[in-house]
Amino acid sequence: MDTDAAFDNDFGMLNEQTYQRFQTALTTCAADRTIVSSIGNAVVLDAGIQTSGSLRAGILLAELCLADSASITLQPCDANRYAVDQAVVVQTDAPVAACLGAQYAGWPVKTDDFFAMGSGPMRLFRGKEPVLKELSLSDSGDNVVGILETDKLPPESVIQLIADECGVPNSGVHLAVAPSTSIAGSVQVVARSIETALHKLHELKFDVGAIVSAVGVAPLSPPAKPGDMVGGIGRTNDAMLYGAHVTLWVDVDDEQIESVADKVPSASSDDHGRPFAKIFKSYDYDFYKVDPMLFSPAVVTFHNLRSGRTWSRGSILTDVLRESFLS
Amino acid sequence: MDTDAAFDNDFGMLNEQTYQRFQTALTTCAADRTIVSSIGNAVVLDAGIQTSGSLRAGILLAELCLADSASITLQPCDANRYAVDQAVVVQTDAPVAACLGAQYAGWPVKTDDFFAMGSGPMRLFRGKEPVLKELSLSDSGDNVVGILETDKLPPESVIQLIADECGVPNSGVHLAVAPSTSIAGSVQVVARSIETALHKLHELKFDVGAIVSAVGVAPLSPPAKPGDMVGGIGRTNDAMLYGAHVTLWVDVDDEQIESVADKVPSASSDDHGRPFAKIFKSYDYDFYKVDPMLFSPAVVTFHNLRSGRTWSRGSILTDVLRESFLS
Amino acid sequence: MDTDAAFDNDFGMLNEQTYQRFQTALTTCAADRTIVSSIGNAVVLDAGIQTSGSLRAGILLAELCLADSASITLQPCDANRYAVDQAVVVQTDAPVAACLGAQYAGWPVKTDDFFAMGSGPMRLFRGKEPVLKELSLSDSGDNVVGILETDKLPPESVIQLIADECGVPNSGVHLAVAPSTSIAGSVQVVARSIETALHKLHELKFDVGAIVSAVGVAPLSPPAKPGDMVGGIGRTNDAMLYGAHVTLWVDVDDEQIESVADKVPSASSDDHGRPFAKIFKSYDYDFYKVDPMLFSPAVVTFHNLRSGRTWSRGSILTDVLRESFLS
Repeated sequence: MDTDAAFDNDFGMLNEQTYQRFQTALTTCAADRTIVSSIGNAVVLDAGIQTSGSLRAGILLAELCLADSASITLQPCDANRYAVDQAVVVQTDAPVAACLGAQYAGWPVKTDDFFAMGSGPMRLFRGKEPVLKELSLSDSGDNVVGILETDKLPPESVIQLIADECGVPNSGVHLAVAPSTSIAGSVQVVARSIETALHKLHELKFDVGAIVSAVGVAPLSPPAKPGDMVGGIGRTNDAMLYGAHVTLWVDVDDEQIESVADKVPSASSDDHGRPFAKIFKSYDYDFYKVDPMLFSPAVVTFHNLRSGRTWSRGSILTDVLRESFLS
Repeated sequence: MDTDAAFDNDFGMLNEQTYQRFQTALTTCAADRTIVSSIGNAVVLDAGIQTSGSLRAGILLAELCLADSASITLQPCDANRYAVDQAVVVQTDAPVAACLGAQYAGWPVKTDDFFAMGSGPMRLFRGKEPVLKELSLSDSGDNVVGILETDKLPPESVIQLIADECGVPNSGVHLAVAPSTSIAGSVQVVARSIETALHKLHELKFDVGAIVSAVGVAPLSPPAKPGDMVGGIGRTNDAMLYGAHVTLWVDVDDEQIESVADKVPSASSDDHGRPFAKIFKSYDYDFYKVDPMLFSPAVVTFHNLRSGRTWSRGSILTDVLRESFLS
Repeated sequence: MDTDAAFDNDFGMLNEQTYQRFQTALTTCAADRTIVSSIGNAVVLDAGIQTSGSLRAGILLAELCLADSASITLQPCDANRYAVDQAVVVQTDAPVAACLGAQYAGWPVKTDDFFAMGSGPMRLFRGKEPVLKELSLSDSGDNVVGILETDKLPPESVIQLIADECGVPNSGVHLAVAPSTSIAGSVQVVARSIETALHKLHELKFDVGAIVSAVGVAPLSPPAKPGDMVGGIGRTNDAMLYGAHVTLWVDVDDEQIESVADKVPSASSDDHGRPFAKIFKSYDYDFYKVDPMLFSPAVVTFHNLRSGRTWSRGSILTDVLRESFLS
């Protein structure tokens, strides 16, 4: 990724700029250890199903997911605190467009024989999700780019579904795919620290448009065993809930921050404190029974440009990270 | 910033290479959240006055300020030690040219109705400052690039003044501007860790030409409230005085280091130990009463290539950083 | 380095791609503080003999050494733990090709009046080392790139030797050279954390082909006094033995990891626990008497993609790092 190019967008052509990044990725398959195929005239970039993938491919997936509007890097972190030695760091000056407009996994892509959570800027073409309507986020053009968390390649019927819902021909569909239990998948999911904070803030009725810039840091969870969906979801969620720290530069009245600050970090939820896999099991693996307020970073810091004041809430739970990542 | 290009310079065309970086910045205004305007035929890039600016814009300003001869990155740091979660890291192999030739804010740009500290390589064209003469630093060409710390756009009279003092036509003047209370301004000022060390070393008669390479790390202070000049100066200074760590690779006799090592970190000053805003107030906001020896990083480390020996002096003052940044 | 380009390789043309990186380096000599000369029709890039070199040049040497198949960055680290403030971080998705195929210093380049350890992808053209044969690593083409750790420029006879052993004309030989006591040399050697782990794993009969991706972090040791070969070797080795942490993502049966995990970190050797210079001295400076099992990182972590399990062994020895680096 060229650092400048990575951030370029005019917030009106997110898919188009992500498509450009996707095209570049087609030229680095050997180094990224990705495999490109054509399925129903769509281009599908496999980063972890029929290939082992790579750290590079994980960063690529995160870039595509964030509509090429953020920088993603791996950085060393203290294993005594985070249970692992590497963290995924995300930095963006377009947090709403990148994270809620593109990265949020808000599209359950489902056919009779396939299911995967869909994310990436293609969601803007579909436009059905409440969060997109509420924030008036949309996009247009000839190409869409999306990411599917899946351990099998999408069949032609899925391509057709995506094309139809986005209103583009199949040939305009560009997908990058990997299971959450792969290297690339783990990087891609753990790159969602800022998104998690923004989504919860939006649920709490905070004006996310007031968030000017953001940095998120989360420990890179070890990939779970292939096929262990609960383990994969568990560890990547734990990286957020117990290990992620998000810093937000906002421009808003102090009262708005005061009213949400205590509620933003994951610790505000009664479900907080155990590995996610255990929480999930205790609810019989029914997502809708898990407290939606649980899904947020361990620590959230606000720097208010309007007042010069700072709020920091939450804490890193090393013991839970260890239990989740290392057993 | 392309990493290679960022460092390229032959130390004789600093403004020309910075001008090239400036030209690139004109193509990324949407992503940088900057605004370009023409004032008196000069090009002015606003990164925080009529725009909120961004982290990217802050890095850009720092790059311009350092004559595109250093790499600048944000990196996570431990909030338990630095009071905040992000640090500005500067790395350069041209410390004297980049930091004293360009970055040092040594030009008080003043007209009847405007005042701002001026920095960046344009200072080399003016050439009036003692530090430039003492180190025989100069430059030539058709274009100059400068940075102004200001919360209002420079009027035409200021452009005229800069053009006249630099000996270029107005159209050769290229300015990037932001207040220190903006996001971009805070990044730009906190990127001065190496410069602060070099300036003090020069004052102490250390041969700064013996400094081969340098890395500086300083916590990114939260922007102060708009208009709160003392707060803005206070926090960014505290990031240096109590939070910055500079490592210098030097090639010199050990005696030269011995004679200055204890004097370099900020702790050598009697004013050290309180937030800068309090020190400043205690001197009735008169800069000239503050001990000039105060202005230096919290910790300075020398690695002497000639002897293989290392000196490290000073310490991080977490409590003062907390008092300054979080209240 | 363009991040994408840096990793591109098809594992069959390592010298060719490294040659492209070498060509780029010829255009940034001023910024890298390197000197290019022609010796016996070969191109020799001096990064620390007749020049002070730079941090940039050190990163360049590491990139060349790793066949441009890894990213190398300097990152801040905690001096309370690592004795110094900067670490060299290496990240690669082609660990075997980059580290054993190219970076391993397995070629003693020796003539009547010259000796230097040779590393870099040129070793693949020579092909004599057991490790290359055992792993079936080879390469072909018109140009070779190598790195020599030396404090004097290689004479024409050395160029001739390298050309002959590689089977290329002298004009196809491209060398980058620096002593381990220079800035660039210290960065380049400390960038060997992953290589050290892989080489030991290979000696332990672990299937290194199962290593998918890797990240290594090691403190940047202060360059020793010029001419102090033992000091130079001592400090850079100590950075590995007592300060390096390597994380490996592998795809293998758990039993394979179980059988080597305890033996991989340096602590498994009886020689472990003292600065390398002291160990070396105790064996009368005879390398062959030092326990070969000593040469490995302080900490090695395995994430097994096949099982989802993690192993982490070894620890950082701050006291030994302090004794080695700071006295």
